[in-house]
Amino acid sequence: MENFNFYSPTEFVFGQNRENEAGFYVKKYGGTKVLLHYGASSAKKSGLLDRVIQSLTKENISFVELGGVQPNPHDSLVYKGIELCRKENVDFILAIGGGSSIDSAKAIAIGVPYDGDFWDFYSGKSPKKALPIGTILTIAAAGSEGSGDSVITKEDGMLKRGTGGDCLRPKFSILNPQLTCTLPAYQTACGATDIMAHIFERYFTNTPEVEVTDRLCEGLLMTMIKETPRVIVDPNNYQARANIMWAGMVAHNNIVGVGREQDWNSHGIEHELSALYDCAHGAGLAVIMPAWMEFVMHHDVMRFAQVATRVWGCKMNFANPEVTAKEGIVRFRQFLKSIGMPINFAELGAKESDIPQLVKTFGIGDGTTGGFVHLSAKDIQSIYEIAAKATL
Amino acid sequence: MENFNFYSPTEFVFGQNRENEAGFYVKKYGGTKVLLHYGASSAKKSGLLDRVIQSLTKENISFVELGGVQPNPHDSLVYKGIELCRKENVDFILAIGGGSSIDSAKAIAIGVPYDGDFWDFYSGKSPKKALPIGTILTIAAAGSEGSGDSVITKEDGMLKRGTGGDCLRPKFSILNPQLTCTLPAYQTACGATDIMAHIFERYFTNTPEVEVTDRLCEGLLMTMIKETPRVIVDPNNYQARANIMWAGMVAHNNIVGVGREQDWNSHGIEHELSALYDCAHGAGLAVIMPAWMEFVMHHDVMRFAQVATRVWGCKMNFANPEVTAKEGIVRFRQFLKSIGMPINFAELGAKESDIPQLVKTFGIGDGTTGGFVHLSAKDIQSIYEIAAKATL
Repeated sequence: MENFNFYSPTEFVFGQNRENEAGFYVKKYGGTKVLLHYGASSAKKSGLLDRVIQSLTKENISFVELGGVQPNPHDSLVYKGIELCRKENVDFILAIGGGSSIDSAKAIAIGVPYDGDFWDFYSGKSPKKALPIGTILTIAAAGSEGSGDSVITKEDGMLKRGTGGDCLRPKFSILNPQLTCTLPAYQTACGATDIMAHIFERYFTNTPEVEVTDRLCEGLLMTMIKETPRVIVDPNNYQARANIMWAGMVAHNNIVGVGREQDWNSHGIEHELSALYDCAHGAGLAVIMPAWMEFVMHHDVMRFAQVATRVWGCKMNFANPEVTAKEGIVRFRQFLKSIGMPINFAELGAKESDIPQLVKTFGIGDGTTGGFVHLSAKDIQSIYEIAAKATL
Repeated sequence: MENFNFYSPTEFVFGQNRENEAGFYVKKYGGTKVLLHYGASSAKKSGLLDRVIQSLTKENISFVELGGVQPNPHDSLVYKGIELCRKENVDFILAIGGGSSIDSAKAIAIGVPYDGDFWDFYSGKSPKKALPIGTILTIAAAGSEGSGDSVITKEDGMLKRGTGGDCLRPKFSILNPQLTCTLPAYQTACGATDIMAHIFERYFTNTPEVEVTDRLCEGLLMTMIKETPRVIVDPNNYQARANIMWAGMVAHNNIVGVGREQDWNSHGIEHELSALYDCAHGAGLAVIMPAWMEFVMHHDVMRFAQVATRVWGCKMNFANPEVTAKEGIVRFRQFLKSIGMPINFAELGAKESDIPQLVKTFGIGDGTTGGFVHLSAKDIQSIYEIAAKATL
């Protein structure tokens, strides 16, 4: 295990009807003038926004609104939000939605007190100061409610880039599983895939002797494998939604990823897909991650055999562990298919002929990535090619 | 799953040589005059105290010392600490040691800004204000480094009582597994038993649909079962020590216990043993917890069968799940014995003839406890009796 710091100061407010306490928590964490930042009209239609506003009003907290966050949130709305917050003297940002709303809120939060262009932080600069933010989560997926990370797409060139820092960790996050019950099955499955990917990105490591985080990761994966099909069949299953929602936070606040080298290449490779096709991040991951697994499996067959036996319930083939390792990847793809995810380019709506462009935008040039297996441009191309043609 | 709040704002500073950063972190969290609070002479002899003082001096932080914390820390030293802090205008308490030093530090921290007797907080009052504390952990056991809990023994009557509140959560906790390598095998095993007990106290619940926390608890238990024997055989096994140390924190900051009714009766029943005999808390738990399991098993045989199969690797007896459930408890006791723990009163140094006194001090009267199974005084007596006579 490697040395590490772990810091997750967010107060998680979990359970039924908790969004009615939004005003209490904004006040608790010092907010007096709030930017309500959200995405599609669903927050309005469902009455969620009204309940939140009522809760703020009860605490005499004033607010301004900025809706319209898109999936794979764009920089143009971030600039608009920064301007609005400055003009209105906003001192607290409350994101209502999923990872996109939260990531957009985080970008605004670092942009407001910064003199330069907020994109600097998405080009390598470390954020040190931000407006405080809170979140009300409406989809279990990105884990942004418990992380210090944010991913934004720059419209000029459709560059999808991330940043991270402790100042971006929400002061509080309200997680009410009820709010996720109205999600269509496809979005629910995309979220579940994203959560599983966050675990796998941590799981595949070269760091030896990480039993505790291995076991925690495996526990989360088994939870997702049990609970996801239940909500696909029965979207109103509160208990399954609740288990998934907490798993989604734990999977990404990094308590199960500390002290180990992590990978994150599948996320990077997927980002090019969702940036180019504006597809759901989770759907892109469903296509990319098993392909990445096939490509890198021989780097550590026993780790793949371990997850196959411990998580997917495969019988260990002691004579030929590779058989078990491969079986685990097949089970993963079968699982993704069973919850309605695409497993190849055609099902995702991506084109094999775009692969050269995807590799180019990935921008690795003559270098390699870091992580479990360091990937060259050629390797990345191979992974896209495996993903393009994948079948069961 | 039930509604809950989860808040764990402590910064964990984990790994080799991290105690040399103590001064940096005290300063980061606003300390200018520190009380160094520790137990036995080992912190002095090992050079740990010198390294911490050097680190404070480097940051121009002044300090006073109060050593002498005993296992099952007493109220008398707490009063001394409160007086010293007030006299010296201490604004930060740094605990060096295990759960005892940390719990004693927490008691001092709530006592200093309080006009009345600090014992009020151990008699039902909720602490709302405390001096900030930091910890440098030297044994993986109590989990106090990541919790808002504290347990103190009142010398008058040898009453062992606890309190808890967010203001008692450490600002930072330095966890260097190297510092635990010099622990004798017995203390190491006591610590491991305490960690496993913290998990079981959360695991046995009447709350349905808690797959995510079940799986996380099981992952931690499997980690302890793998890693503990390794450090008993090889005390200097840094990696096994590291896995145990992180498991100890995760087991007790409650991230694996949220949203579910918890038990904690074994802890209560054990507290009477360690208060009366001044035995190690972990050793007392090794005697009590399997006895408690035998007593309550029929309340939910399938939950006991679940842990037996998922954690202890028993084969499920589908015709008679009780057989599997019992096998899990036997495996637990075998495990405790294998790491050198006592499994009955004689091995612990307790007397069967004291049972009426233990039950009386427990103080349940005509009522019952809460938790997984509500226990009457008669039930508690039965558990002590099972524990007294236990064999393999």
